[in-house]
Amino acid sequence: MANLVRFAVSINSDLLAKFDKLIEEKSYVNRSEAIRDLIRNYIVESEWESDEETVGVVTIVYNHHIRELTDKLADIQHAYNTMINSALHVHLDSDNCLEAIVVKGKSSEIEKFAYKLIGIKGVKHGQLTKTTSGKDI
Amino acid sequence: MANLVRFAVSINSDLLAKFDKLIEEKSYVNRSEAIRDLIRNYIVESEWESDEETVGVVTIVYNHHIRELTDKLADIQHAYNTMINSALHVHLDSDNCLEAIVVKGKSSEIEKFAYKLIGIKGVKHGQLTKTTSGKDI
Amino acid sequence: MANLVRFAVSINSDLLAKFDKLIEEKSYVNRSEAIRDLIRNYIVESEWESDEETVGVVTIVYNHHIRELTDKLADIQHAYNTMINSALHVHLDSDNCLEAIVVKGKSSEIEKFAYKLIGIKGVKHGQLTKTTSGKDI
Amino acid sequence: MANLVRFAVSINSDLLAKFDKLIEEKSYVNRSEAIRDLIRNYIVESEWESDEETVGVVTIVYNHHIRELTDKLADIQHAYNTMINSALHVHLDSDNCLEAIVVKGKSSEIEKFAYKLIGIKGVKHGQLTKTTSGKDI
Repeated sequence: MANLVRFAVSINSDLLAKFDKLIEEKSYVNRSEAIRDLIRNYIVESEWESDEETVGVVTIVYNHHIRELTDKLADIQHAYNTMINSALHVHLDSDNCLEAIVVKGKSSEIEKFAYKLIGIKGVKHGQLTKTTSGKDI
Repeated sequence: MANLVRFAVSINSDLLAKFDKLIEEKSYVNRSEAIRDLIRNYIVESEWESDEETVGVVTIVYNHHIRELTDKLADIQHAYNTMINSALHVHLDSDNCLEAIVVKGKSSEIEKFAYKLIGIKGVKHGQLTKTTSGKDI
Repeated sequence: MANLVRFAVSINSDLLAKFDKLIEEKSYVNRSEAIRDLIRNYIVESEWESDEETVGVVTIVYNHHIRELTDKLADIQHAYNTMINSALHVHLDSDNCLEAIVVKGKSSEIEKFAYKLIGIKGVKHGQLTKTTSGKDI
Repeated sequence: MANLVRFAVSINSDLLAKFDKLIEEKSYVNRSEAIRDLIRNYIVESEWESDEETVGVVTIVYNHHIRELTDKLADIQHAYNTMINSALHVHLDSDNCLEAIVVKGKSSEIEKFAYKLIGIKGVKHGQLTKTTSGKDI
């Protein structure tokens, strides 16, 4: 496990007061945790830009009554089965389903998979959530 | 079920050619579906701005070895149990877990819940994915 | 002028190494400046969400040959003249102009002004850049 | 000049009603203009991803009292002089300045220029606004 180290930040006291007020509103337990979160978000964004191995979640909302839609969704997921870890299926109401699919791989491949699902007729809304494997961060 | 209607869009032919090229790259089956997706994304964004009832997915990546972290995550989820539909848990490696939590409610409440989870020490990365109940869209 | 203060952040050494590598790529002069930028971005985002007095830049690209377009753009800008500080006009080519308009006011008012300009026929692309008055940050 | 063409979109009537309500709120003059804007935004985003020749605006807010800051800003701008079209300078108050700099070039080069400016000590907030040359769209 990595060692814990400390570093100092010099900052204008007014700016720090504003920051402390904001992180309290956002329910942060302390300032160090908020700073680490800003740092990690910044790193995760850059990981996605540089096409590294990472983790994403593809969320789609669709009407399962559309003819052949569930077959098409299954076909695409099987074509990408080596990248897909698992999926959560929620019945939102009598017509609409939500599926959250956890995918590991290069960011460009995850994006291609997400576009394929989102482009299908009957998929009402699709989002790709860019997160991380958690390694080294 | 709603009726299908048609409307016409007048557009510069160069612009249309660029659009057709782009949606082919993004795997869209046809132009109508791509337009409907742009429309739905635009509506979903505005639903989240106006604090309507909607659906979100909170994705967190965390190190489950951090002391008391799983207890804290469970406590917060229980406090919001009426909003939470379900959650998918993935073991990314020996240290890191991913959780994708499907939440229904007003957008401001979903955001508050997301901030609470993301602010906990040990949660390395958190994202709120803004999607939709699928009703009427 | 506000006092300079210092605070310490404790962090995993691997995470810090990744951050240092990234900020070097992004041309940051040092770690403190990068941290302050992350903090200020976070505060500016929240200022825009809470409808405070702030500063924005509305950037539009349009074809000045479109009939009555420049009149309409001028009319809207005059209606908001108390909020507009100034504007930069660039002739991109024989058809296209870019205008960057600096606006002060409540974030909701600046957004309304931006939507009005962007909604005009002939305005090809419009963006609202959310920045800050620079006070206390 | 390109020809005007028309194409039809088939859509659920409830979805169309929601869209019409939303674009009225956002001050769009008509449905075709709103659709064209969605299309153009989508194309401009993809132009920036694929490193084409394009146009951006770099907006910075800084405290001009910081020692040597204005010299550094000038040095960087001169190093990129072939890409910079022009800049608008606004005195926000006795301490703070805003500068909006219009830049033409490959998207990766514009980004590098933006990072250089934003990374300087004394630059409080920086944003890169991704727009377009307006050609063919």
